[in-house]
Amino acid sequence: MLVAPSMLASDFSHLADELKKITDGGADFVHLDVMDGAFVPNISFGAPVIAAMRPHTALPFDVHLMIRHPKKYVADFAKAGADIVSFHVECDDDPDEVIAEILSHGVKPAMVIKPNTPAESVFPYLDKLYLVLVMTVEPGFGGQSFMHGPLLKVRQIKEKNPSVLIEVDGGINAQTVLECARVGVDVCVAGTGIFKAEDPAAVIRQLQAAGR
Amino acid sequence: MLVAPSMLASDFSHLADELKKITDGGADFVHLDVMDGAFVPNISFGAPVIAAMRPHTALPFDVHLMIRHPKKYVADFAKAGADIVSFHVECDDDPDEVIAEILSHGVKPAMVIKPNTPAESVFPYLDKLYLVLVMTVEPGFGGQSFMHGPLLKVRQIKEKNPSVLIEVDGGINAQTVLECARVGVDVCVAGTGIFKAEDPAAVIRQLQAAGR
Repeated sequence: MLVAPSMLASDFSHLADELKKITDGGADFVHLDVMDGAFVPNISFGAPVIAAMRPHTALPFDVHLMIRHPKKYVADFAKAGADIVSFHVECDDDPDEVIAEILSHGVKPAMVIKPNTPAESVFPYLDKLYLVLVMTVEPGFGGQSFMHGPLLKVRQIKEKNPSVLIEVDGGINAQTVLECARVGVDVCVAGTGIFKAEDPAAVIRQLQAAGR
Repeated sequence: MLVAPSMLASDFSHLADELKKITDGGADFVHLDVMDGAFVPNISFGAPVIAAMRPHTALPFDVHLMIRHPKKYVADFAKAGADIVSFHVECDDDPDEVIAEILSHGVKPAMVIKPNTPAESVFPYLDKLYLVLVMTVEPGFGGQSFMHGPLLKVRQIKEKNPSVLIEVDGGINAQTVLECARVGVDVCVAGTGIFKAEDPAAVIRQLQAAGR
């Protein structure tokens, strides 16, 4: 199991230190939640903040765009240092066009589905995707509990295309990660569980071990 | 002349240090540019980043909302620690309602006008405002040159209501600040000129001296 700590749960006043903590702690990706206040009802941070983080770690930047019009922002996030850019199937743009735009910047394309969106909605795009993010909470808010239902979609997507990575985000902890591993999840996002821990490296190791 | 360094020009990976630099350097306000990617074509940062900065300085937080629907976000920014909240006369909400919402949270209300918006557009609200921000560049982009035209509006607003503070933002430096002081500007925003300086305190002192 790969582990992607979400910077949304970090201390924004010491981002360089927080990035060092998870890099030294053995994290696999850095998960970055971009919210525009329109697709989701909060504004988090955008490209300037991500660009400032880039020099502080060599880990891949996994950028989750919770924004209405991802296509026109792909270039900004590629320039800021994104390695993976994920956008919602529920956004206002044409998925094929967004994927083409992501690829044109040499970035790995990914798509995200909300808890109530069926797996079938991403089937037409699977062959072009590096990763699918299956949300296990409603995107845009913190502190929600893990939803078990979306895990059915992990199996459905894996059956359709076993090579695409599946990521889950929302309510992941030492217990729920086991359930995710069982259905074939490859990457898990975790926030407060890592950043608020006394020993973040131990939490990362424990989540990574869930896949074995 | 009061000086409000804009955090948009700071190093986001070391915000605590950057805040200490301007606090020790004698700044008067901390200027915070919130962009949603819809009202302006960039996403900067939102309430979670501002809340993380709050413990690191006692300076007033002057939050400039470049967002389409400020009214529904006022509560988030008040909770994050805003002391002044400014919104655009060009936004999609009713100004009287936004001002009432800001006041209901014990925050000082302010309005912003873009370079091509006439001074008259804020006249109906002046008696309720703590501050008017007159943009001297188009909001949402960095690196633009100071526009002289908007300074005419400073005089017009001061004539109508001498007690409201006037702030300017965009292209302010040691030369342009003198012109601003001459027409009665009370607060100037400055970004790279302060944060990229070898001696930020000296730059702040120089801008402050323009009013004398």
